[in-house]
Amino acid sequence: MLVVMERNATPELVARVCEEIQKMGLKAHPMEGTQRTAIGVTGNDGQVDSDRILTLKGVRDILRITPSYKLVSREHKPEDTIVTVGNASIGGREFAVMAGPCSVENRDQCLTIAEKVAASGAKIFRGGAFKPRTSPYSFQGLGEKGLEILAEVREKFGLVIVTEAMDTETLDMVASYTDIVQIGARNMQNYSLLKKAGRADKPVLLKRGISATLDELLMAAEYVMAEGNENVILCERGVRSASNHSHNVLDLSAVPFVKKYSHLPIIADPSHGTGSRDRVMPLSRAALAAGADGLLIEVHHEPSKALSDAAQAISPEDFEGLMKVMRQMAPVIDRTLP
Amino acid sequence: MLVVMERNATPELVARVCEEIQKMGLKAHPMEGTQRTAIGVTGNDGQVDSDRILTLKGVRDILRITPSYKLVSREHKPEDTIVTVGNASIGGREFAVMAGPCSVENRDQCLTIAEKVAASGAKIFRGGAFKPRTSPYSFQGLGEKGLEILAEVREKFGLVIVTEAMDTETLDMVASYTDIVQIGARNMQNYSLLKKAGRADKPVLLKRGISATLDELLMAAEYVMAEGNENVILCERGVRSASNHSHNVLDLSAVPFVKKYSHLPIIADPSHGTGSRDRVMPLSRAALAAGADGLLIEVHHEPSKALSDAAQAISPEDFEGLMKVMRQMAPVIDRTLP
Amino acid sequence: MLVVMERNATPELVARVCEEIQKMGLKAHPMEGTQRTAIGVTGNDGQVDSDRILTLKGVRDILRITPSYKLVSREHKPEDTIVTVGNASIGGREFAVMAGPCSVENRDQCLTIAEKVAASGAKIFRGGAFKPRTSPYSFQGLGEKGLEILAEVREKFGLVIVTEAMDTETLDMVASYTDIVQIGARNMQNYSLLKKAGRADKPVLLKRGISATLDELLMAAEYVMAEGNENVILCERGVRSASNHSHNVLDLSAVPFVKKYSHLPIIADPSHGTGSRDRVMPLSRAALAAGADGLLIEVHHEPSKALSDAAQAISPEDFEGLMKVMRQMAPVIDRTLP
Amino acid sequence: MLVVMERNATPELVARVCEEIQKMGLKAHPMEGTQRTAIGVTGNDGQVDSDRILTLKGVRDILRITPSYKLVSREHKPEDTIVTVGNASIGGREFAVMAGPCSVENRDQCLTIAEKVAASGAKIFRGGAFKPRTSPYSFQGLGEKGLEILAEVREKFGLVIVTEAMDTETLDMVASYTDIVQIGARNMQNYSLLKKAGRADKPVLLKRGISATLDELLMAAEYVMAEGNENVILCERGVRSASNHSHNVLDLSAVPFVKKYSHLPIIADPSHGTGSRDRVMPLSRAALAAGADGLLIEVHHEPSKALSDAAQAISPEDFEGLMKVMRQMAPVIDRTLP
Repeated sequence: MLVVMERNATPELVARVCEEIQKMGLKAHPMEGTQRTAIGVTGNDGQVDSDRILTLKGVRDILRITPSYKLVSREHKPEDTIVTVGNASIGGREFAVMAGPCSVENRDQCLTIAEKVAASGAKIFRGGAFKPRTSPYSFQGLGEKGLEILAEVREKFGLVIVTEAMDTETLDMVASYTDIVQIGARNMQNYSLLKKAGRADKPVLLKRGISATLDELLMAAEYVMAEGNENVILCERGVRSASNHSHNVLDLSAVPFVKKYSHLPIIADPSHGTGSRDRVMPLSRAALAAGADGLLIEVHHEPSKALSDAAQAISPEDFEGLMKVMRQMAPVIDRTLP
Repeated sequence: MLVVMERNATPELVARVCEEIQKMGLKAHPMEGTQRTAIGVTGNDGQVDSDRILTLKGVRDILRITPSYKLVSREHKPEDTIVTVGNASIGGREFAVMAGPCSVENRDQCLTIAEKVAASGAKIFRGGAFKPRTSPYSFQGLGEKGLEILAEVREKFGLVIVTEAMDTETLDMVASYTDIVQIGARNMQNYSLLKKAGRADKPVLLKRGISATLDELLMAAEYVMAEGNENVILCERGVRSASNHSHNVLDLSAVPFVKKYSHLPIIADPSHGTGSRDRVMPLSRAALAAGADGLLIEVHHEPSKALSDAAQAISPEDFEGLMKVMRQMAPVIDRTLP
Repeated sequence: MLVVMERNATPELVARVCEEIQKMGLKAHPMEGTQRTAIGVTGNDGQVDSDRILTLKGVRDILRITPSYKLVSREHKPEDTIVTVGNASIGGREFAVMAGPCSVENRDQCLTIAEKVAASGAKIFRGGAFKPRTSPYSFQGLGEKGLEILAEVREKFGLVIVTEAMDTETLDMVASYTDIVQIGARNMQNYSLLKKAGRADKPVLLKRGISATLDELLMAAEYVMAEGNENVILCERGVRSASNHSHNVLDLSAVPFVKKYSHLPIIADPSHGTGSRDRVMPLSRAALAAGADGLLIEVHHEPSKALSDAAQAISPEDFEGLMKVMRQMAPVIDRTLP
Repeated sequence: MLVVMERNATPELVARVCEEIQKMGLKAHPMEGTQRTAIGVTGNDGQVDSDRILTLKGVRDILRITPSYKLVSREHKPEDTIVTVGNASIGGREFAVMAGPCSVENRDQCLTIAEKVAASGAKIFRGGAFKPRTSPYSFQGLGEKGLEILAEVREKFGLVIVTEAMDTETLDMVASYTDIVQIGARNMQNYSLLKKAGRADKPVLLKRGISATLDELLMAAEYVMAEGNENVILCERGVRSASNHSHNVLDLSAVPFVKKYSHLPIIADPSHGTGSRDRVMPLSRAALAAGADGLLIEVHHEPSKALSDAAQAISPEDFEGLMKVMRQMAPVIDRTLP
């Protein structure tokens, strides 16, 4: 940490601040600059709220060095984490594709879509049984009935299942049906849910909050890992910006950032990340090209009858076309597609 | 809803879209414009996912009319909601001041601060027993022990208590101790928590999410009200922006917006809204002047030793000064301060 | 500046980075921390692009201490700058109110509005003769004809005039008519225009860019001051955010920030800052309460016929009511209103 | 346009609003809905400020249909615009790569870099002679001397030149040396500059403003085209967001959006779009995969001595590697790379 003093801070004032810093159990390294004095601070293991220093007279600002994530950091674990579930894996050479409808609407819908996405090469099937909806009057998902349908999909097509758990009360139930537990964007900082997911014995797919920084995303993953669950998959799904042409801006630069500072795999969700069918295809290819470890993508056989997210689901035919293109593109950056 | 057609859409295409809209159970009103045709759509009570229309050929865009909030809207209930708790009320003529530390740290700290803020005129005491922290390694609050201290504060000083419930598992416990249940910004779209709070018999203080739109805030309040709890207090606490001089930008224009479209009271949190002690005082005055119904404000007697949010807590002396100024200012806009 | 090393950087690597820093003409102060080494850097007077250090092996990140603004900083000039023009002043005890239409539409419109705002106590008249419009097909202003009308307003009512200069080609002409030259939000980083305004002999009203940080705003003012013009008035006019209920979010915390770090006066523009008549009144009061030095506010006698910004102009009657309320409020925070 | 009435608006009020709309020369189409009445409005060719309608009693909100861009729209010109300059073209099958240093620092630097990027296949050379810098004390570019160096680069290596014009005063001079005139992000809404560029006889590279919406970007291009210059190339270069890991968020979804609604070519600038060398490579590949028509990319042979943007320039060796990868990737999506 670096404490920046006011320009006109006297040597006495600097000395007093150094003293106070030492009283907090930290070490102070004053450095005189051309315009002002700064004080380097070492020895903080995260227990001292550094904001306190801001309350001292003569202090103009403080610059913090590092996010305090540990377990998720690449410095802690240099090699890539590869999450393996059934015959799928996320974070290795194979690009992981998770496809399916936004919501589990009924058995026929799921079986129809699952058959098609499996035929196109997807190994993981997505579908929401519990749906977080902005309005309490919108379709809220089929609940456990939906989970049963998902289990049937696994049975029938050998697909790995990923579905969302919305609260601590139903997390165990969800985990008992699914292969991967998804934590949605709205719950990225629902710490009670993160802790409970950290104690589940299933991998966790953690979506970035709607305007979360990447440090916050990694800290959320740290909550899961700190409870003992090492199988965390991150997911970039777009952030809010002042731009209004899209629900969100899919921030693909998150991919190289996460790859540099963390060993965890990261996938992209171009469906929520763009909110628009036309943009799902190009952004899917872009996610692969940017180095993402996989995709979470909405596919619906009858988008015009979908109960949710109708505008962003692509058809099974488009999905097949996309898979073909990505299969050709992958080897160029040393990846494979099933 | 207005369906905007592509400029070159033929009359046949327009007719086909109208037909499809009618098949969805809605009514279509085509209107030929100078540049393109638009189709007004009526009859949607919120059950049809309007995104479906975007999937039809020839459709360029759709414009949605209204957020589907009902119970929270002023159209539903024209008169202001006034939430009364003990000898305090929020939403009436009296400006409601909720003051206290960020975290309940120990008994002495709370009693010391509570005595001072009560003496300055605050009727409501704030303090977190369960703390949502970005890092799992930061102080997480005293839990039930903290709630007991808060209960003692109420006992001793006659203050109304407000404290946060972080999850569905502890909400009942929190509600059994506190007078007002706070739902934090990170949980604004934790719908399971909102629903449970909607079944509690205590008023709910609902904080705006870090980049939530006001429609999303009102829809979150709708979740609470739809479960039968009519005592919801909204709280503006700053939104993220590209500006970096402040943790957040306190969006005081939220106050007149909410007042216009909803009957619910809305207060402001200048502590989180600015993140900086120096700005808490002017923004508190500004919140009053903008028409807010009250303040949620962090006060600490020893900010330099606070366990959380040290940079934004003001001293009891500054708080007293602030109350004096606001007491003089209030009558000008027809409000009172205790 | 603080250079943050990778956690696993060897002492040799740290030494090499220190050496490179010294080669750049700067001084390196290595500090070993619990988790990693950091290197304090002093001696940079702004001539070395600190980004270069990021290119050195073993460097994880750099933290920059200070914006390089000098002339605008309070450290450079501790006392408040008061800009005096005619019988008006901005930055002193008197709250400065600049009122008038968005655009100068014709002589009658200006004289009508000017008479009314003068009667309500405004000393400064605003009105655009050159209008920056998003569409090339929208009304672009009357140009010099508009400036002549503004000059007549000054003549007739003794009002001080403020109007926008859009480019270097017309700045001299604008400056020859007006008392204060406005630089609009879209041009905040039009450095050629800023430099030319810095050589004009009229005060400059500099509006914050639509998503400019305050450091960028102050650096833009530095451009003007560096050319010799010391009379700069800053203006907060709202920043973009993810929130969609308002054109912009009026960031009143900019006021105490600027007051702390700069000696320049800062006013608020609640008309553009909210985009909605209903919110102009409460936010105007809030700006005063937050400590702003004045207001820039749109008033139109026939909003339903305005050629631009019809939704945000208030009527002369509402303006009069607002002035009355603010006149009562001002003394509480030790200000006066004419 | 759709006018949304208050829920409790009486039939008389609706009738009055319709009447007023007709007085404005527009046509009103009232539609009674389940919750409220809406009024479709047709006949506005952009001359009427639709905000006026908001001032009528009983009106809750208005929804606007279309941005008024015309010349830039695909509806106006269905086929893709291909800008051809020398032996390069932008917008056709060949992916256009513009590479070079941020600033023209001296002759040697430019010749060295130019030789290398040309050898790797770039046909267009970038380099700033006039530099818009946040601080007036930073290196401001070599001016005309820099333009001469760029002309020598063209001479020597047959490269097409693109460089920025910062103001109306120097635009003609810049245009006389360069092949493509760049308008920078800070000047995207400098309408005087846009108009002048519209009268130049060189193609214009228009960069998206730092938080501009795509409609605003297209309207800025409309300013150029409205003056007669049809050769406009758009450039996505990142937008501000609340996320702090990156200078900006490169918004690749802008590419399919622009492709859908406009005929103009759009390229991406991953250097400014990420601000970090490590992310330039993956985001360059992603831009190609997303369907962009080219890249604007910073290359420097000695990044650690660069006078500006040192952190984001890649080395000529990395550039060569990137070109190789992209050359393999391009055919998959039916493009070529030189």
